[in-house]
Amino acid sequence: MTATSSQLDAVLAAVDSGLDQSLERLFELLRIKSISTDPAYAAECQRAADWLVSELNGLGFGASARPTPGHPVVVAHGPEQAGPHVLFYAHYDVQPVDPVALWHSDPFEPELREAADGRKIIVARGASDDKGQMLTFIEACRAYKAVTGSLPVRVSLMLEGEEESGGKNLPPFMEANRDELGTADIALVCDTDMWDRTTPSITAMLRGLVGEEVEITAANKDLHSGMFGNAARNPNQVLADIIASLRAPDGSVAIEGFYDDVAEITPELKAQWAGLGFDEQEFLGEVGLSAPAGEQSRSVLEMLWARPTCEINGMWGGYTGDGFKTVIPAKASAKISFRLVSGMQPDKIRAAFRRHVEARLPPDCTVRFSEHGGSPAITVPTDGPMLQKALVGLTGEWGKPAVVTGSGGSIPVVGEFKRILGLDTLLIGFAQIDDQIHSPNEKYDLESFHRGIRSWVRVLAALAE
Amino acid sequence: MTATSSQLDAVLAAVDSGLDQSLERLFELLRIKSISTDPAYAAECQRAADWLVSELNGLGFGASARPTPGHPVVVAHGPEQAGPHVLFYAHYDVQPVDPVALWHSDPFEPELREAADGRKIIVARGASDDKGQMLTFIEACRAYKAVTGSLPVRVSLMLEGEEESGGKNLPPFMEANRDELGTADIALVCDTDMWDRTTPSITAMLRGLVGEEVEITAANKDLHSGMFGNAARNPNQVLADIIASLRAPDGSVAIEGFYDDVAEITPELKAQWAGLGFDEQEFLGEVGLSAPAGEQSRSVLEMLWARPTCEINGMWGGYTGDGFKTVIPAKASAKISFRLVSGMQPDKIRAAFRRHVEARLPPDCTVRFSEHGGSPAITVPTDGPMLQKALVGLTGEWGKPAVVTGSGGSIPVVGEFKRILGLDTLLIGFAQIDDQIHSPNEKYDLESFHRGIRSWVRVLAALAE
Repeated sequence: MTATSSQLDAVLAAVDSGLDQSLERLFELLRIKSISTDPAYAAECQRAADWLVSELNGLGFGASARPTPGHPVVVAHGPEQAGPHVLFYAHYDVQPVDPVALWHSDPFEPELREAADGRKIIVARGASDDKGQMLTFIEACRAYKAVTGSLPVRVSLMLEGEEESGGKNLPPFMEANRDELGTADIALVCDTDMWDRTTPSITAMLRGLVGEEVEITAANKDLHSGMFGNAARNPNQVLADIIASLRAPDGSVAIEGFYDDVAEITPELKAQWAGLGFDEQEFLGEVGLSAPAGEQSRSVLEMLWARPTCEINGMWGGYTGDGFKTVIPAKASAKISFRLVSGMQPDKIRAAFRRHVEARLPPDCTVRFSEHGGSPAITVPTDGPMLQKALVGLTGEWGKPAVVTGSGGSIPVVGEFKRILGLDTLLIGFAQIDDQIHSPNEKYDLESFHRGIRSWVRVLAALAE
Repeated sequence: MTATSSQLDAVLAAVDSGLDQSLERLFELLRIKSISTDPAYAAECQRAADWLVSELNGLGFGASARPTPGHPVVVAHGPEQAGPHVLFYAHYDVQPVDPVALWHSDPFEPELREAADGRKIIVARGASDDKGQMLTFIEACRAYKAVTGSLPVRVSLMLEGEEESGGKNLPPFMEANRDELGTADIALVCDTDMWDRTTPSITAMLRGLVGEEVEITAANKDLHSGMFGNAARNPNQVLADIIASLRAPDGSVAIEGFYDDVAEITPELKAQWAGLGFDEQEFLGEVGLSAPAGEQSRSVLEMLWARPTCEINGMWGGYTGDGFKTVIPAKASAKISFRLVSGMQPDKIRAAFRRHVEARLPPDCTVRFSEHGGSPAITVPTDGPMLQKALVGLTGEWGKPAVVTGSGGSIPVVGEFKRILGLDTLLIGFAQIDDQIHSPNEKYDLESFHRGIRSWVRVLAALAE
C-alpha cells in the first residue's frame, strides 16, 4: 500500500498528539531492569520480552517470546501484503549500571528532565541504547495502525535480549529459523547515531569486535611484599608490562600483523569525510578531553570509523579496597577488546593477540585466555534502491540531506543478517553523541524520540513507493 | 632477680605442662576479628585490646587500653625491680582476609591441624602475625609468675592495634608518653622469623616502607569504546604504561635517583650471608616459583635484605565483573609500595616516585596521589651486651647457635623506639617462611608457639644475668 500525502500527514499528526502516551510506554519498558550480562537479572529480561510481546500483539502482530539457551528472542510478524517486507531488529537488554554512585537519579526510574541547554532529555539506563530507539519504530507502526488500520509495507520484528552480553545465542537462533526470517527483503537496525542534532544519517560502515579476558598467574598464593618483594614475580607488574607493550610510542597497536588486512580508505571517502566538518576539539571536549590518543598520523574520524583499536576495558589485581595491604598477588587480570575494520578476521586478531602475550610472559608465569565474542566489521553498499528511498524519507523529516557515515561501534547482527539470511541492512538511528550510553546518566533526547518516530513513519512510506 | 638453674627448669616444665591452656588462650584471641584497616571491625579491635588488658592484669601487670584517634594501645607495667627493664612490643591487629574463598577454613575459627609433613599447625588469620608471636612472650611471663611469683627482669608491654593499617597514631602516642615508656632499657619486638625450622635468629636489618596510592583520570566520564576507542585516552592503558616504566629491563627500579642513597653491603657481610646456605630454589619453590624477578645481578638474599623494591600491591580500573563491558573508564588506580634499605629517606623516595609519574602523564590526564605511611630502614647494632645475652638464651633452647639476619619486611616502630624513646631493639621471633602471613590459610607452627614461649623464658633469664 502506498500512502497518500494526506494519509502521511494524518499519521504524523497522530505521532505528535500521541507523544505523551508513547513516552509513558517507553517509561514502562525502561523500568524493567533487563541487564543481560548479570544472571541475577534473568527474570527482568524475560519481563521485558513479555512486555514487548504484549505490545506487539496489541498492534496486530503475531508476536511471541522464543526461548534460547539464554534470554528469549521476541519475533513478530505483521500480515502478508504486497510490496517490500522489512525485518526490524533492536535489543531490549541493557548494560550494567555501575558505577551506580555516579548516577544523579535511579537508573531504572526514568525521568524527563530539562538539560542545561534547555533540551528535554529522557534519563535512564537504556533510554537511548536501545529501548528508546526500539520504540521509535514500534510507535511509528502504532500511529500507522491507528490512522490507516495497516502498515505501508510488510513488517516483521526480531528483538534480542543479549546484545550487551556477547549475543552468542542469536546466530544459532537465526540459523534455526532461517526459513521464517529470511523471507524479508531487507533488515532495519535502529541502534546508531544521528550525524549531529539536526542531521540524520544512515550508517554504512561498522567496526567489528573481539573480546578477550586474560588472567596471569605467578606464585601459587598471595605473598607478603616484605618477605618476597623484588625476588618474586609480581603479576600486576607483568600484566602492566604486557598492556604497555600493546601500543607503540606513535599510538598504533603493536601486535605483530595487526594491520596486515587493514586497507587505507579511498581518497574519495577521505575527501567526503573531511567535508563533513567534524570538529575534533568539540567531540573530545564534550567528554573533557582535548588531544586525540591513538594513531597520531590519523584524523579522529578516520581512527573511529576506519582504523582498528585495542582498548583495556578492565584490569584488576591484588588489594583494591580501602587502606593498604602489602601483598604480591598470585593473579592479575584484564578485559581487552579490539575493534576491527573491514578485511580483518576476528580469529586471526585473537590468535595474534594471544601470541603477543605468550611471547612476553616471563619465567614462572602462566596465562589463561577467555573469549568474549568476536565479529567482523561490516560495510553496507550505499547504492541500493532501499537505502536511497530511506534517505529521501529522512531528508523529508529533517529538512536537510541525510548523510552516509561510518561508526566506531560494532553491531555483529548486521554481519549475521547477510551471512545467515542473505539480507542487507539499513542502519538508521536517532541517538546523539552525548547520550552517555554504557555510562552513568544515559539519556535520549525527547526530540530524538519524537522525530525518530516521525522519521520511521516517513521511511516506511518511502520504502512502499 | 637472677634465676637459678633449677628455677629455670621448673619454669620450662610449667610451659610444657600448660601448653594446652596457652593454646586455648591463643584461640580465644584469634577468634576476635581485629582487622584494623576496615572501619567495620573497629569494635573487634577494641575487644582484642580489652582481652589483653584483662589477661595482663590477671598476671599482676598494671594494664590499660589507652585511647588514640584510631584503635587503642595496650600499655602494661610490671612492678619495679632491680636489673634491666624491657619494653615488649607486639600488635593485636590483623590483615584483611580476602580473598576469603581461598581459605580452607574460617579465618577466625582457629584450628589445630596436622600438615602434610606431620607438623602440627595453628591455622587462622593472625596465628603467626602477630597474635601467636605476641602470646609466646605473655605465656612465658605467665609461667614465670606461676612458678616463681615474679619475673627475672622488669617488664613493660606496649601492644598496638594499627600495625597492619599504617600505624600512624603510634608515634604521637609514644611522644605523648615518652616519660612513662622511655624508662625501659631496651625494646623487645616479636614480629620476625626464625632462620629455618631449627635455627633461631635475631633480626638486625629491616627494610623501610613507603606506601602510595595513585589515581589517574582522563575523560570526565566512562566512555563507550566503540564510540571513542582509539581517539580517547584510556586511563587503564596510561596506568599500565606508567607501571611498566617503573622497572628497567634488568629488573632494577627505573625511578631517577632511586638507588642514590643505597650502599653496597660490605664484602664481610656478603661472605657471611653466602655462608648461611640459603637455597634460592627452595625459597622460591615453596611458593611455586623457580626464577628470581628483580635485579638480575643480585642474589635473592641480597635483594630481600639489602636492596630496595617497588611492588604493585593492587591495581584496578574499568569493568571487572562477570561478562564483558566495552567501556573506556574515566579513572584507573594502583596501590604501590617501596621497601627501603638503610640510608634511603622515605620522603625523598615518595617525591621521586611522584615526579616519575607526573613526567609520564600524557595530555588530558590528571593524577591524584594518596600517602599510605612511610618509615626508614633500620639497622640494629650487633655488638651490644643485651643482644649477646639474648643469643645465649636462644642458643640454649634450640641447641645450636642463633644467627643474626636481615629481613625484607618493615617494622616502623623499631625506628620510633630509637627516635622517640632512645631505645635499641632486639627483634626475636619464631615465625616460619611458610606461615603465609597476609595470605589465605595463615598458620603458626605449634612448635614455634611452644618453643617460642620456652625461648622467651630463657631470654628473660639471660637478660637478668
